[in-house]
Amino acid sequence: MQLGLVGLGKMGFSMRERLRRAGHDVVGYDRNPEVSDAGSLEDMVARLAAPRTVWIMVPHGAPTRQTVEQLATLLAPGDLVIEGGNSRWTEDQANAALLAEKGIGYLDCGVSGGVWGLENGYGLMVGGDAELVERAMPIFDALRPEGPREEGFAHAGEVGAGHFAKMVHNGIEYGLMQAYAEGYELLAAAEAVKDVPGVLKAWTRGTVVRSWLLDLLVNALEEDAELRDVAGYVEDSGEGRWTIEAAIDHSVPAPVMSAALFARFGSRQKDSPAMKAVAALRNQFGGHAVHRTGPTSGAGELK
Amino acid sequence: MQLGLVGLGKMGFSMRERLRRAGHDVVGYDRNPEVSDAGSLEDMVARLAAPRTVWIMVPHGAPTRQTVEQLATLLAPGDLVIEGGNSRWTEDQANAALLAEKGIGYLDCGVSGGVWGLENGYGLMVGGDAELVERAMPIFDALRPEGPREEGFAHAGEVGAGHFAKMVHNGIEYGLMQAYAEGYELLAAAEAVKDVPGVLKAWTRGTVVRSWLLDLLVNALEEDAELRDVAGYVEDSGEGRWTIEAAIDHSVPAPVMSAALFARFGSRQKDSPAMKAVAALRNQFGGHAVHRTGPTSGAGELK
Amino acid sequence: MQLGLVGLGKMGFSMRERLRRAGHDVVGYDRNPEVSDAGSLEDMVARLAAPRTVWIMVPHGAPTRQTVEQLATLLAPGDLVIEGGNSRWTEDQANAALLAEKGIGYLDCGVSGGVWGLENGYGLMVGGDAELVERAMPIFDALRPEGPREEGFAHAGEVGAGHFAKMVHNGIEYGLMQAYAEGYELLAAAEAVKDVPGVLKAWTRGTVVRSWLLDLLVNALEEDAELRDVAGYVEDSGEGRWTIEAAIDHSVPAPVMSAALFARFGSRQKDSPAMKAVAALRNQFGGHAVHRTGPTSGAGELK
Amino acid sequence: MQLGLVGLGKMGFSMRERLRRAGHDVVGYDRNPEVSDAGSLEDMVARLAAPRTVWIMVPHGAPTRQTVEQLATLLAPGDLVIEGGNSRWTEDQANAALLAEKGIGYLDCGVSGGVWGLENGYGLMVGGDAELVERAMPIFDALRPEGPREEGFAHAGEVGAGHFAKMVHNGIEYGLMQAYAEGYELLAAAEAVKDVPGVLKAWTRGTVVRSWLLDLLVNALEEDAELRDVAGYVEDSGEGRWTIEAAIDHSVPAPVMSAALFARFGSRQKDSPAMKAVAALRNQFGGHAVHRTGPTSGAGELK
Repeated sequence: MQLGLVGLGKMGFSMRERLRRAGHDVVGYDRNPEVSDAGSLEDMVARLAAPRTVWIMVPHGAPTRQTVEQLATLLAPGDLVIEGGNSRWTEDQANAALLAEKGIGYLDCGVSGGVWGLENGYGLMVGGDAELVERAMPIFDALRPEGPREEGFAHAGEVGAGHFAKMVHNGIEYGLMQAYAEGYELLAAAEAVKDVPGVLKAWTRGTVVRSWLLDLLVNALEEDAELRDVAGYVEDSGEGRWTIEAAIDHSVPAPVMSAALFARFGSRQKDSPAMKAVAALRNQFGGHAVHRTGPTSGAGELK
Repeated sequence: MQLGLVGLGKMGFSMRERLRRAGHDVVGYDRNPEVSDAGSLEDMVARLAAPRTVWIMVPHGAPTRQTVEQLATLLAPGDLVIEGGNSRWTEDQANAALLAEKGIGYLDCGVSGGVWGLENGYGLMVGGDAELVERAMPIFDALRPEGPREEGFAHAGEVGAGHFAKMVHNGIEYGLMQAYAEGYELLAAAEAVKDVPGVLKAWTRGTVVRSWLLDLLVNALEEDAELRDVAGYVEDSGEGRWTIEAAIDHSVPAPVMSAALFARFGSRQKDSPAMKAVAALRNQFGGHAVHRTGPTSGAGELK
Repeated sequence: MQLGLVGLGKMGFSMRERLRRAGHDVVGYDRNPEVSDAGSLEDMVARLAAPRTVWIMVPHGAPTRQTVEQLATLLAPGDLVIEGGNSRWTEDQANAALLAEKGIGYLDCGVSGGVWGLENGYGLMVGGDAELVERAMPIFDALRPEGPREEGFAHAGEVGAGHFAKMVHNGIEYGLMQAYAEGYELLAAAEAVKDVPGVLKAWTRGTVVRSWLLDLLVNALEEDAELRDVAGYVEDSGEGRWTIEAAIDHSVPAPVMSAALFARFGSRQKDSPAMKAVAALRNQFGGHAVHRTGPTSGAGELK
Repeated sequence: MQLGLVGLGKMGFSMRERLRRAGHDVVGYDRNPEVSDAGSLEDMVARLAAPRTVWIMVPHGAPTRQTVEQLATLLAPGDLVIEGGNSRWTEDQANAALLAEKGIGYLDCGVSGGVWGLENGYGLMVGGDAELVERAMPIFDALRPEGPREEGFAHAGEVGAGHFAKMVHNGIEYGLMQAYAEGYELLAAAEAVKDVPGVLKAWTRGTVVRSWLLDLLVNALEEDAELRDVAGYVEDSGEGRWTIEAAIDHSVPAPVMSAALFARFGSRQKDSPAMKAVAALRNQFGGHAVHRTGPTSGAGELK
């Protein structure tokens, strides 16, 4: 079927390619003319036959919101917008309401798979009306991995449920990664263990902890056995934060997912104000020496 | 090759079967005569040709220790003992030393795979001398999953390294399970999400969080979509505790693995003494009502 | 000086009393005529001489917002509103802006002290213009504990800073309480320790952990040495949640404060969905028995 | 009464002074002749009248163990040894047994108070027989803070209970410090808050979070308002580790105390192997840039 695709970045670019390989007619638009099929959003819409389906794949927040607002003026009743970016699920209601005023349908779709999605397919979680989901199913079927539909696609629930599910997916991802990472560090710290990459590789078949993330960690260690060339500095792109906030909203204990998030925050600090306070306290009550910081000494050096 | 196998419980029984299917000559001994091949440990040893290899697969702690001690008297110089149970890695040094006095070799082997190992094979992590590892390789090759050896087997390091690696494997396992569990609870708490099992199943292909544990959770939810028939009561078998203790010994931060362990402890409490103390404190300073406990009221009911 | 005081609940009632003892002229208004000095908010305002100062002490959220809106219509330029309730700091900007349109000043004031404040005084943290803070200082001086002003009062910063500081105060409070509570549980679990209340009482002088909260825990244990009559069920009133959300907004690791919050969430669950998932997983991979739930069995009982 | 005191370091030196001020006859021994009253341990013992009481205040582990062994040969039946150092509670049984063979009594005593103990007194927690506790009470009364005995002294229980109680005291202390520290960091991160030291000082009277540790943090901030001269590098002296291990032994959830311990471990890492693994994983699945480390760049710098 025909699809307008707004946003041809790392994800959108690969998705266009996967859709085309499946025989769909994709008209992509991006501000970058080198990758764009259409000269403008108006042009892209003009090249689609009604009823149109437009997939948004731009950064979340203002860019997504502005795209929805523009499409609200460009599209016609009966058209359908699918928000496939990493939007916070709380934004979907507003998007859907805005488009509904113009008679335009709305689905939110969480997309997992990263740079591997072009070949492996993308895990898809969709929120919105069943009728609209059904209408867009050829697109979903092309994007999702091969195999039974339900192993790579879910109609998660109402508007917002797709992004909610993707958010939780990412919260879990944080926890999984941190679990492997802590285990890795402990193995690396043990004198008796001589082959850490070998141990992790031996877990990739037959064990309880085998997973795709484990495979990736094995890959990383095959490239750099002690990760010498990687700093322990980890960004986060928002979904982990939202997951903890959603857990708080729902009174759900989330000790593991929050620990993973806070570990990332900590990894980005050159020196921890909290630990300065603890060091200062120990000095106050016990006369314990503190490590001094200064222009010529690094954190942690004793003056 | 020929192998004596002591302990034919859930794990040992299946391992004998897998070894036999691979053509090995296994003489099993178990206190339970219904499953045992030999009438006694002595009998088992007598039926093996020197140099003998004996695999121990009995409960950790005293049973394993006693088996090692008995084998020290029954075996001969040049024989080899492989401790494949869930022993704490700190016990391997003593086992190895005891057997070394008699000229008997020792390997420790962590085994992962659970009830699925018979069909899928077992992930193996081995500690000890390379020469002994090489000698027992036919056994390891039969037990490990099919595929490249290094994807289901590792010579982890010195004596103890095999059990250390298995211990860390289990610590990671705790963290992974808790991560999925927290995500499951959050999905189940969200009103917008109508199909929690469907969402989890949709993650089984193409997503970042796909894993064998996820597959198992999907299985469990297919049997009981809301886990109505399962209590939130979780045992632990020791390795998780040892992992945290090892992390403490090595000054390795383990926030995720410890949170997972503590969640298990908490799951087994009918009422938490700590939370009683917090409730009492809130009552003291804020006049906040406490929930009373009594013979006819459950925890959490307001009197 | 003269003060209008809206809200005469547990906190407001005691604050009126403390202010009157200090010689201030307080006109209190509450919907409950039994405690109210004025028949209506209009009546209260009418009984104050310009420039008026009105302190709001009603539940946070809609009640506070509505009171601010009503006061915006009843008060005159040059008047001053002090929001002393447990409002979220993010609401103060809107309150201040609404009143500023009418030329009415605004301060936010975090108040700590609970039911003990009448006698001990209240810790006060104020946000807003220095000029307005100075104007209301006689009120703050009457409410705060005796002793140096700076040991019970702070001009924390801009509008919102007072409530932010109070929020963090409560987040810390959660952490402190949980730390004592965990220690209490561990002491109670140790066979060698025969006098848990005695140990805690022995910490009240001279030790590093002495505090008012410790004194309160000692009080509670003197009333009920094993806390038999208190359920481990702990409510939360919002500030702890906001603290974690603020920590997330500012990328501040908050492992202790979040653990304390999640412990409260957990304390209120009859059965944990997350731990059901973990139990189900263990059953799937290891054949571990699960504890069954049913109409006649409590959580945790083995069927 | 007369007391032999072995170990005149930071703690022992001050305790001798406090005991002498209270009129006790203290014969101190230390390897450092500048502070020692006796030329040798033998000399110290020779200068005490039977039945003797000897207080040990040397570093835990080997030094304490060796002192106990020496005293077992030097003392006589009816004498009493009090182990007041920071020994792990699990060592007390062995100490007591060794001395009991010679008819020598044993008490273990946890001592809190740090460098402030000379003036404020020391919180004391004692394990052992009631009769021996009674016999040494004049010493305990001199060391503990003034005021009711039970507010600075507890007979906690059997041998080991004193050190167990002190260990838990320290575990709580870790949690309390971390709670304040996280709150401090969050206040310091908030743009609206202009006077962080002022806010903390305003908590020192009347609030729920007032404590001696808070007073100390206020002191530290008065000396260095932004803790510019303190590195966020925090040592630990063992009791926090033992507390978590004891919690694990007793199946007591300890999320806050463990988070505080792990925060210290993390504070001492120049780069975190675990976070390297997480960064490597993100790079693998998402193509996220990693921060490179290298000879000329600090951790966290993007190459």
